[in-house]
Amino acid sequence: MARIRLGMVGGGNDAFIGGVHRIASRIDDRFELVAGALSSTPEKSAESAKALGIERSYGDFDEMALAEAAREDGIEAVSIVTPNHVHAAAAKAFLAQGIHVICDKPLTSTMQDAADLEKAVADSKALFVLTHNYTGYPMIRQARDMVASGELGTVRLVQAEYPQDWLTSPMENEGVKQAEWRTDPARSGAGGSIGDIGTHAHNLACFMSGLRVESLAADLHSFGAGRTLDDNAHMMLRFAGGARGMLWSSQVAPGNENALKIRIYGEKGGLEWSQEDPNYLWFTPHGAPKRLLTRNGAGATEASQAVSRIPGGHPEGYLEGFATLYNEAADAIRAVQGGADRATAMGVLPGIAEGMEGMRFITACVSSSANDAAWTVL
Amino acid sequence: MARIRLGMVGGGNDAFIGGVHRIASRIDDRFELVAGALSSTPEKSAESAKALGIERSYGDFDEMALAEAAREDGIEAVSIVTPNHVHAAAAKAFLAQGIHVICDKPLTSTMQDAADLEKAVADSKALFVLTHNYTGYPMIRQARDMVASGELGTVRLVQAEYPQDWLTSPMENEGVKQAEWRTDPARSGAGGSIGDIGTHAHNLACFMSGLRVESLAADLHSFGAGRTLDDNAHMMLRFAGGARGMLWSSQVAPGNENALKIRIYGEKGGLEWSQEDPNYLWFTPHGAPKRLLTRNGAGATEASQAVSRIPGGHPEGYLEGFATLYNEAADAIRAVQGGADRATAMGVLPGIAEGMEGMRFITACVSSSANDAAWTVL
Amino acid sequence: MARIRLGMVGGGNDAFIGGVHRIASRIDDRFELVAGALSSTPEKSAESAKALGIERSYGDFDEMALAEAAREDGIEAVSIVTPNHVHAAAAKAFLAQGIHVICDKPLTSTMQDAADLEKAVADSKALFVLTHNYTGYPMIRQARDMVASGELGTVRLVQAEYPQDWLTSPMENEGVKQAEWRTDPARSGAGGSIGDIGTHAHNLACFMSGLRVESLAADLHSFGAGRTLDDNAHMMLRFAGGARGMLWSSQVAPGNENALKIRIYGEKGGLEWSQEDPNYLWFTPHGAPKRLLTRNGAGATEASQAVSRIPGGHPEGYLEGFATLYNEAADAIRAVQGGADRATAMGVLPGIAEGMEGMRFITACVSSSANDAAWTVL
Amino acid sequence: MARIRLGMVGGGNDAFIGGVHRIASRIDDRFELVAGALSSTPEKSAESAKALGIERSYGDFDEMALAEAAREDGIEAVSIVTPNHVHAAAAKAFLAQGIHVICDKPLTSTMQDAADLEKAVADSKALFVLTHNYTGYPMIRQARDMVASGELGTVRLVQAEYPQDWLTSPMENEGVKQAEWRTDPARSGAGGSIGDIGTHAHNLACFMSGLRVESLAADLHSFGAGRTLDDNAHMMLRFAGGARGMLWSSQVAPGNENALKIRIYGEKGGLEWSQEDPNYLWFTPHGAPKRLLTRNGAGATEASQAVSRIPGGHPEGYLEGFATLYNEAADAIRAVQGGADRATAMGVLPGIAEGMEGMRFITACVSSSANDAAWTVL
Repeated sequence: MARIRLGMVGGGNDAFIGGVHRIASRIDDRFELVAGALSSTPEKSAESAKALGIERSYGDFDEMALAEAAREDGIEAVSIVTPNHVHAAAAKAFLAQGIHVICDKPLTSTMQDAADLEKAVADSKALFVLTHNYTGYPMIRQARDMVASGELGTVRLVQAEYPQDWLTSPMENEGVKQAEWRTDPARSGAGGSIGDIGTHAHNLACFMSGLRVESLAADLHSFGAGRTLDDNAHMMLRFAGGARGMLWSSQVAPGNENALKIRIYGEKGGLEWSQEDPNYLWFTPHGAPKRLLTRNGAGATEASQAVSRIPGGHPEGYLEGFATLYNEAADAIRAVQGGADRATAMGVLPGIAEGMEGMRFITACVSSSANDAAWTVL
Repeated sequence: MARIRLGMVGGGNDAFIGGVHRIASRIDDRFELVAGALSSTPEKSAESAKALGIERSYGDFDEMALAEAAREDGIEAVSIVTPNHVHAAAAKAFLAQGIHVICDKPLTSTMQDAADLEKAVADSKALFVLTHNYTGYPMIRQARDMVASGELGTVRLVQAEYPQDWLTSPMENEGVKQAEWRTDPARSGAGGSIGDIGTHAHNLACFMSGLRVESLAADLHSFGAGRTLDDNAHMMLRFAGGARGMLWSSQVAPGNENALKIRIYGEKGGLEWSQEDPNYLWFTPHGAPKRLLTRNGAGATEASQAVSRIPGGHPEGYLEGFATLYNEAADAIRAVQGGADRATAMGVLPGIAEGMEGMRFITACVSSSANDAAWTVL
Repeated sequence: MARIRLGMVGGGNDAFIGGVHRIASRIDDRFELVAGALSSTPEKSAESAKALGIERSYGDFDEMALAEAAREDGIEAVSIVTPNHVHAAAAKAFLAQGIHVICDKPLTSTMQDAADLEKAVADSKALFVLTHNYTGYPMIRQARDMVASGELGTVRLVQAEYPQDWLTSPMENEGVKQAEWRTDPARSGAGGSIGDIGTHAHNLACFMSGLRVESLAADLHSFGAGRTLDDNAHMMLRFAGGARGMLWSSQVAPGNENALKIRIYGEKGGLEWSQEDPNYLWFTPHGAPKRLLTRNGAGATEASQAVSRIPGGHPEGYLEGFATLYNEAADAIRAVQGGADRATAMGVLPGIAEGMEGMRFITACVSSSANDAAWTVL
Repeated sequence: MARIRLGMVGGGNDAFIGGVHRIASRIDDRFELVAGALSSTPEKSAESAKALGIERSYGDFDEMALAEAAREDGIEAVSIVTPNHVHAAAAKAFLAQGIHVICDKPLTSTMQDAADLEKAVADSKALFVLTHNYTGYPMIRQARDMVASGELGTVRLVQAEYPQDWLTSPMENEGVKQAEWRTDPARSGAGGSIGDIGTHAHNLACFMSGLRVESLAADLHSFGAGRTLDDNAHMMLRFAGGARGMLWSSQVAPGNENALKIRIYGEKGGLEWSQEDPNYLWFTPHGAPKRLLTRNGAGATEASQAVSRIPGGHPEGYLEGFATLYNEAADAIRAVQGGADRATAMGVLPGIAEGMEGMRFITACVSSSANDAAWTVL
């Protein structure tokens, strides 16, 4: 099957997530990156494009959207990998041209931008995929399956945590670009750790459990001197249907590199998954021995096998999980090109709805915390 | 050195914690159990005493306290291992006779009882030791040491959790005695999981970090049908000095046998300890490789070595940690018998102050939860 | 039930294993230590006895055996915890008086001593228990059970290893008493690491698998400068019935404190156990998810529960496993005192047969290695 | 930089390793797959090529080598991913045309083929890369570095193991293609598990330790009924310079998916690495706490960072490790195209020398085992 012609906005030199998107788009050989507006100036963009072997470089995303839409061999989809405050405008430019959008999370930096983007998606026939990449891990798919098929019984508890340590010391004052924009409200939005990683934990907890957070009580804090956005967030959760939970996101917890972990407990059993060891899933049926499920190992469900590339014991990682979203996006793009219904084509891919939910999550966190951790509805 | 003559109240047949206290009292050979009022009736008590080879059996603790005080070879100390609601009355009976008390936690079942007992301790010259046994683990001593000596820098975060799974299904309706009294407010007090295990997590978090919980926001819940006391508690913590934290206690989390875990993060590093693997302590200095410290292994501090019996790699467990409190209680008893000051003799042994703090913790949890998780001062 | 009156030979100040035996004898309250010949001189012995609160101290084991046998309240059993070269003579002295013997391993330092001792056991009515203490761990009992009941199918492979690191540098030249006698052929016998720890691994592999090592091909080596006994041993094993295996013992493997580990694989499944985490047992039925069995947890067999004291999740350790042998020895002693058959009373307790097997193992290792690792029959 | 034009021999439908090579070649965007002889018949090859979007399909590798060499835009390199017995002929066809070869391991199925291929490599100017892919893991590079820079002191012990479980039951009689050819001497060569996975363990042990196996004593066995090649191999190793070791390869060890593990111990410390958790490396300096090094984490060496794509805590896996060999092969190809010396260009890439060493390893294993595990020189 022919590769999908892909463009990219953002992701020039030094950017972390742009490189990740590029590798992810290549792993399953479904995309070919042919155009980009990779940096903030036309010169830098052209330089990055050349270094990466990308044919067409543009000065900005508006120019790119128009020009590519006008070409017969123009891009069919675009990856948006800029800081958060650029997401909305860039996405709208491509959606307006009917070009499918694959956008990094969180959705936008403000609720107003989010609402505008939501409308733009509604008005477009193009797909909008939000890269909540952790949903692409095979064992996450298996966990979601197992919960949905009732292996845990009614879910009672969801414990989510996402500690990191990279902001333990004040990196943003030491010229680290990643730290600069992630601690800057103008570029990141109202959430610090909750926007950067808390939204991942929230999204994943809901994806796995099949539940929606109805309200939360949050205590946000900045430990870093002079830091305005939260670098640590504690919160209690209440889910629709009666389940309860906790969520902890932190970027000041030394020894935690990227320690996203979700635990779900129901009347009949529990599940436990850690992002740093993603090929494993603990399943603990109540009253029976604990079982360590492995990717593509004995007991792997169809949903898990479908997104697994190599045999059990040959570890897949972060890039493969990310690639699964690209692979499924490719399927979805080809499906809508073939006339399929947009919602059906999306399948379990995270999109605008998950993006809006994430924005409500950030907003509720900030509001609850400002209100002395009062319970706040999402 | 001569063994200390010990009595026991509670701990007859079928009791779990009584047997634990007896083993703990023997491990370091400092006590000899010579008298008891082990059960609720004189007949059952005598039967249990005979089975255990205990010389003198009494009908109740009042009789026992008077009789033993009157003997030249009467008991020097007593272990109280009854359900919570009996602690206060029993302890007072022995304190009044100048007999040292080693009492199971939580302190009592009501705040009124606690206040009475606090007064009784103040009025007595005898020691009052509360068996927050987890403080006896060598790696806990090491953690406390390392925090105190500044290896973490200023502490920012304390994450405590204590999940179990034994009340996942309604054991209390199936004739399990342990489950019956622990879910009964009349015998347990106002706290369910928070009294039984939450107090341990709270105590240990404070013991290790050297910090005091100033206020908390708690969400208690009973998932078990018809259960009146909490079987799950979520809460956020604020410590004196600015540190923040979370605490989760649960008895409905399948796959967790006794999974007490404390993590502490400071400006310079972190510590992580799990009760089920107690011979290990993770130390994560910021910006350096993670280190796995082992009991009596390389890097063991004096405080840790002092309470360790065998070489590294030969695992010590729950009973040895418990025994350390008995060993230190024996030292303290001999010290006060020799004229030492009571407070000095106690050293790091948990006592009435820790017991009162635990009661305040339970009270604050219940009050906060009843008040929609409002921040509540301890 | 009355406690068994116990004596001890060896185990004076500074000795590691003597203290372990004493704690182990106390944990289940079946023994009372009343007599000893604890050190090499009467003076030192008396001093140690006094420090430990032992009533009767003797100048040597011969004197002790005679004197105690002559008393009405003399010891019923004796623990022998000296260096290896003293085991045979001491054990024979007590066996000759009908006093039950609990002896540290390996059996003796020479084959001649072993044969003499074997004869002495045969000629006595007293019990001879050899403290291959690792057989007392509950999960080891469970593993043995599971193999015996066919859960693995026919056993094909047994992989045993016992690495330590304490002889990585030449401790024996630095005044470390433990290192001195263990590296001295006159006191340890022909085996270095193979006698000290290899025999444990060999014994445990056989105990768990129910199989006998028929022949082995061994490559012994001393890495420590000037060391005459092996500090590392590699060997391949052939078991009766066709199973094969490997055994590695080492005292020069940095990072390994006491890392005894046994893995058994059959046609239908596997088992894996590590001494440093003794409350866990991996069970890997072929074609099904891996299961982590826990002590007294779901799936615990009767044999495992019978030697477990406290609930799952409350870790038991090395001392409790050791104590199980004392507890079972107490049962056996009371049984033979009550007229039971000696062999029946022993149950699964290791005794003279296991001791002789260990001596044959050491002999075969040394002989094979001297013969260029030729296959050598045990 | 322009992508290298790549061809592939083997790797048609159902083949495991062909897909792995294709993904690995794409991850770092250095290759473009443009030609193939993917299956045993022209029809099947064409079908596979079409499904994979490969432009040019050939009936066999000879035809392909000639045709591609004649094109201006012909392939610059070829990946050979057939069963072992085809490696030599295919590789020679391309080497003869000056086309660079990336070949799966083990080198060939017979020593004669290996010698022929060695000569062909010597006679060609093209590169010959053997995909001992595990050498591409970042923590393996770090381990090699650390040994080379003396962090372990003189190496004493190398313990290698590679257990799998997929041949526990007789898969080869159940129509599993992977099992059929791997258990067939005509296609696999003289080694079963030792050829398929033992060579990996041998190669990696040498790569990490910097040592060469001088002789070995091996005990090979087939547990599967009717199986002629070994499905389990035990062996003892002697390295040049005096280090000793063991190697275990097995395909009948239930619960082991792909459990390659290497441990190296020196006078000053140890290292331990497990393939199923490849982002970790234990470093155990003697007399200091154990350290858990992580990929791109604190303490990462340059050699490790150079082959790492994403930050610590974002796990890389098997495919990324494999991709590193492709990335380095691309560097090497461009270097020799630019006039560099072939040996220099290879760097640490495994090539013909490692392939010959692997063949000697297989031959020595078979010979030793046939000779009752006599020490046999490689």
